[in-house]
Amino acid sequence: MNGDLAHLGHVELLTPEPERSLRFFVDGLGMEQEASEGGSVFLRGYGDYQRYSLKLTEAPEPGLGHLALRARSPEALEHAVAAVEAAGLGLGWGNGDLGHGPAYRCTDPDGHPLELYYETERYEAPERLRPVLRNQPQRYTGRGASVERLDHVNLLASDVRACREFATDTLGYRHYEGIVLDDGTEAGAWLSLSIAAHELIYVADARRARGRLHHLAFWVGTREEVMRAADVLMEHRVPIEFAPSKHTVVQGFFLYVFEPGGNRIEVTSGGYFVYDPEREPVMWTEAERARGQAWEVKTVESFHYYGTPPADDEDRACVERCGGSMPARL
Amino acid sequence: MNGDLAHLGHVELLTPEPERSLRFFVDGLGMEQEASEGGSVFLRGYGDYQRYSLKLTEAPEPGLGHLALRARSPEALEHAVAAVEAAGLGLGWGNGDLGHGPAYRCTDPDGHPLELYYETERYEAPERLRPVLRNQPQRYTGRGASVERLDHVNLLASDVRACREFATDTLGYRHYEGIVLDDGTEAGAWLSLSIAAHELIYVADARRARGRLHHLAFWVGTREEVMRAADVLMEHRVPIEFAPSKHTVVQGFFLYVFEPGGNRIEVTSGGYFVYDPEREPVMWTEAERARGQAWEVKTVESFHYYGTPPADDEDRACVERCGGSMPARL
Amino acid sequence: MNGDLAHLGHVELLTPEPERSLRFFVDGLGMEQEASEGGSVFLRGYGDYQRYSLKLTEAPEPGLGHLALRARSPEALEHAVAAVEAAGLGLGWGNGDLGHGPAYRCTDPDGHPLELYYETERYEAPERLRPVLRNQPQRYTGRGASVERLDHVNLLASDVRACREFATDTLGYRHYEGIVLDDGTEAGAWLSLSIAAHELIYVADARRARGRLHHLAFWVGTREEVMRAADVLMEHRVPIEFAPSKHTVVQGFFLYVFEPGGNRIEVTSGGYFVYDPEREPVMWTEAERARGQAWEVKTVESFHYYGTPPADDEDRACVERCGGSMPARL
Amino acid sequence: MNGDLAHLGHVELLTPEPERSLRFFVDGLGMEQEASEGGSVFLRGYGDYQRYSLKLTEAPEPGLGHLALRARSPEALEHAVAAVEAAGLGLGWGNGDLGHGPAYRCTDPDGHPLELYYETERYEAPERLRPVLRNQPQRYTGRGASVERLDHVNLLASDVRACREFATDTLGYRHYEGIVLDDGTEAGAWLSLSIAAHELIYVADARRARGRLHHLAFWVGTREEVMRAADVLMEHRVPIEFAPSKHTVVQGFFLYVFEPGGNRIEVTSGGYFVYDPEREPVMWTEAERARGQAWEVKTVESFHYYGTPPADDEDRACVERCGGSMPARL
Repeated sequence: MNGDLAHLGHVELLTPEPERSLRFFVDGLGMEQEASEGGSVFLRGYGDYQRYSLKLTEAPEPGLGHLALRARSPEALEHAVAAVEAAGLGLGWGNGDLGHGPAYRCTDPDGHPLELYYETERYEAPERLRPVLRNQPQRYTGRGASVERLDHVNLLASDVRACREFATDTLGYRHYEGIVLDDGTEAGAWLSLSIAAHELIYVADARRARGRLHHLAFWVGTREEVMRAADVLMEHRVPIEFAPSKHTVVQGFFLYVFEPGGNRIEVTSGGYFVYDPEREPVMWTEAERARGQAWEVKTVESFHYYGTPPADDEDRACVERCGGSMPARL
Repeated sequence: MNGDLAHLGHVELLTPEPERSLRFFVDGLGMEQEASEGGSVFLRGYGDYQRYSLKLTEAPEPGLGHLALRARSPEALEHAVAAVEAAGLGLGWGNGDLGHGPAYRCTDPDGHPLELYYETERYEAPERLRPVLRNQPQRYTGRGASVERLDHVNLLASDVRACREFATDTLGYRHYEGIVLDDGTEAGAWLSLSIAAHELIYVADARRARGRLHHLAFWVGTREEVMRAADVLMEHRVPIEFAPSKHTVVQGFFLYVFEPGGNRIEVTSGGYFVYDPEREPVMWTEAERARGQAWEVKTVESFHYYGTPPADDEDRACVERCGGSMPARL
Repeated sequence: MNGDLAHLGHVELLTPEPERSLRFFVDGLGMEQEASEGGSVFLRGYGDYQRYSLKLTEAPEPGLGHLALRARSPEALEHAVAAVEAAGLGLGWGNGDLGHGPAYRCTDPDGHPLELYYETERYEAPERLRPVLRNQPQRYTGRGASVERLDHVNLLASDVRACREFATDTLGYRHYEGIVLDDGTEAGAWLSLSIAAHELIYVADARRARGRLHHLAFWVGTREEVMRAADVLMEHRVPIEFAPSKHTVVQGFFLYVFEPGGNRIEVTSGGYFVYDPEREPVMWTEAERARGQAWEVKTVESFHYYGTPPADDEDRACVERCGGSMPARL
Repeated sequence: MNGDLAHLGHVELLTPEPERSLRFFVDGLGMEQEASEGGSVFLRGYGDYQRYSLKLTEAPEPGLGHLALRARSPEALEHAVAAVEAAGLGLGWGNGDLGHGPAYRCTDPDGHPLELYYETERYEAPERLRPVLRNQPQRYTGRGASVERLDHVNLLASDVRACREFATDTLGYRHYEGIVLDDGTEAGAWLSLSIAAHELIYVADARRARGRLHHLAFWVGTREEVMRAADVLMEHRVPIEFAPSKHTVVQGFFLYVFEPGGNRIEVTSGGYFVYDPEREPVMWTEAERARGQAWEVKTVESFHYYGTPPADDEDRACVERCGGSMPARL
């Protein structure tokens, strides 16, 4: 941990179904629309301290627009930019975007678009969203799944090891858990900038494509809320890929669904904290991984290969199916 | 258990703040407005099998309009009516009301208005409220506290013993728990028509008034949802009288708030089932009662005396305070 | 509902691994050993009002010993016995067993051994198990999964319709939900003597055997406790067949495991109450059933065919595997 | 955040009732006894990565023995020691203790004994405590409240501001929330070395004593487990001071009890994460504080003044009462 970067700031998500996707995040996940600008809508959970954590942008295909990491200070930002440039993955400065200052654009070794920034606008709730408890940025509305905040991102990568090393060596992430196949290939890496057991995940892309998104995860405070999210989203006819249960890796409690644009979205809670400053990563073998999740749950097949943008016709068929969800307003 | 009556059918609640009360039940508790007619609004939880369980009626003062019990069959209704008439508490037949057939009006010994009916309309959800699971009458919307159904009613009574005997001997309720003071006075009776540990409660009215309401309780499936209700209602500025915790009697998990009209409303879960067909009631002593609730929680003072309609100036001051709640739409 | 029978009184379970099975129920499920006699051990949950709800008996093969139903009164017992005799399924009176009085032995149309009884001993906790709250029969010890009480039994049947009709017409059960295949065959029936949505279930035996057991279910108060049970039993190396999730039928929250003797055991919570005294059963089609459980969970394959005693080599292999569980004392 | 210190390593707790206190932590909280040496017993939660997080030591009066903080590296330890010496609060090096290497002894400005150390032994579970999931240091036994790990410590201080400044300026803690009275006095400070909203708390000592302990808190993963802990401890006759509910400050979900030695112990869950690297502390006013906890819960009176060691006769009477708890083995 070099300590330059503080946390995952926000994610831009691409969707070919902007209107239905917006309804998914607002009515389904219970997020607030904080702003909209140039074909994008900016959304937030009630616990996000910045103005937004999700930028939803119309695009021909679903997938990751970019992923933005916030630095701890102006100096830390400079330091992080220098590291990225030294790694040969820098692209140059942009002028910032709604809600934050200048951002340095780069990619990880797999080509996922990243941004590093420091200056940010903290959220000031309007009257109707002012919370009763002042240590919370926004009122808890209780609408839909009522997610609290963006939690982590899982990226598919053609070369997990290269991405993991970039994350640890260049960006300063810590490596808490991982998967190593029998032939020595790294097939997964769970990374964090904090004691939370995962903020960034790389998993091998079974399609051997580059720059794809596995899923975006939003946090709720309890396992009960994850199950309540399943009830809420089921009633919205949102396709559930993987019903609420407990992962072996990181022990997070999960629910995976497909939003109408075809991107996989997780509602997550639980997991554990890593207080040990020098913990060795827990590495899982191919055999252990094949056993599935905790409680002897078999991993749903599509979870192993599907990502966005779609990489083949099977993927595309899945995207197609998602387009029909969110048919009814509650 | 003579088996004539099946369950608490619905309750009519009076409110001097009809608009704010309606918002409490719709936005706060998450009920659906099924119909409105002649100054009353008819509301339902997503699990109520009849069209409604709550009739909300404008009135100068808060309190109980009436409480309706559904009979098991036409013959059971006749039999129950004969029993009530024999007890000298009958008032005569009415023409029914929205959603149900002829109802026989009567009172309990304390003067609370009751109705007995059999014919009822079962709820048919309109398209937008059709549930995914067919064994549920209505879609789970997730709005507000999302209460499932009406659960029980707690009535204040000047003579608990007389009311309890009327409930058991005339109406066929079973007596599961109770409170007896050191001087032998019955101060509380928990009664049920089923294995649920309480459907009707009588508690001594500290104001020695007659016909008053202590509270109306709505069910949610988990303790987590009771706590979530507290968060939701806190954000609506609804006055919380007694925060989520566990009762000693019946071991129900509770949250008590005041709706804007001044009536005390509970969100409840938990408790236990009584399978023993001949169980002796568990009677609590004055000393045990003084200890408060489970987990050594002291009972909130107002819980011992406040009811609706208000019986004195202290009560009226409380009603006044409630009128200011539900100021903001989420 | 003719009202003669009150509830499922207890179940006798056969096990070829009596010692390990006992440890499963005591250390795993957290039950108390109330007595032992003649090769059987009598076990209870902390909320069972009778002395025991489970009689565990050594036998060459796992399966159901018998299932005992308690009548509401001496007269109700006589009436129920007469009905069973009239149905031609009576076997005659036994002398009772530890904890209860005379029991009339009979079978259902599939040959499952039943007993009807009325006289029973209510549990009196010894000092070390005396509860703090007097409306609870026994102290909550918190050991293992800490199940509260026996909840329901699921029996495999070669002819579901015949068993269902026996249960409703002869025993007085109500029929709340069911499965009907496209060819009109009844494949499942969920039955109850109370407002609880299931106390007795019949499901078609895929092996076309007779008198087999699908599972025995024990109740815990919350979904969180079901998941906690999964953690506890996972650590005991108990084979989990079907991890915690939500059924479509009855909407119960479940966990299915195999105890060391090979019998399938459920830890259950949730579900809904049926207050409507004349509710039509909710019948599910073959297509709906094929979709699996709520939240789009696919039903685990063995759940469709496995029962005890084993009916073929595949079943026997499963029983074998179970014998190795509960290896370590915690 | 200077980043020298990683986390709260362990706490030594003094008790005049060593045997009963041990049973409280083992049978009540569900901790494991890892070792014992020289009148002390070393205890751990199933998620503690070091050998222990609690050292329980017999002493004439209850209170804090010492509090140990682990440094991130050997260099960080040296750096932290230099800072403490520069602050004039250093006492010198000790030889370490069971499970960890050399520790530098010092105090905070209020005289609470602290130790700083780096070298530590990571826990290796013996066979009977080996977990199924390898990313967990120890088997989850499910015994008692089954606390996962030590979470935070709350210290009473005669001068909160001085202690808070020592924590932030010398030890590198971040200041997330606080209380300022109308006269400008700091009455509480919530401090952390991580994104967890509190790891160390200072609260004004109403007795104006020095070096006292308010409470020690152990973590469980869900609010349901906090309530389950209340049930478990209630059955052990452990005095509950403050039943499960939600704090306003940090929004932690709490249960406060007194262990048999008289020390206040919390079982905690919930709260929120602070990802903002430059967040301004949320400061609560005297008026806000007087309102009590979230959900309008009044703070229990003793919570404002009681600490250990006892500072006057009222405190001593409370310690006395605690000595009678844990009377029965479950």
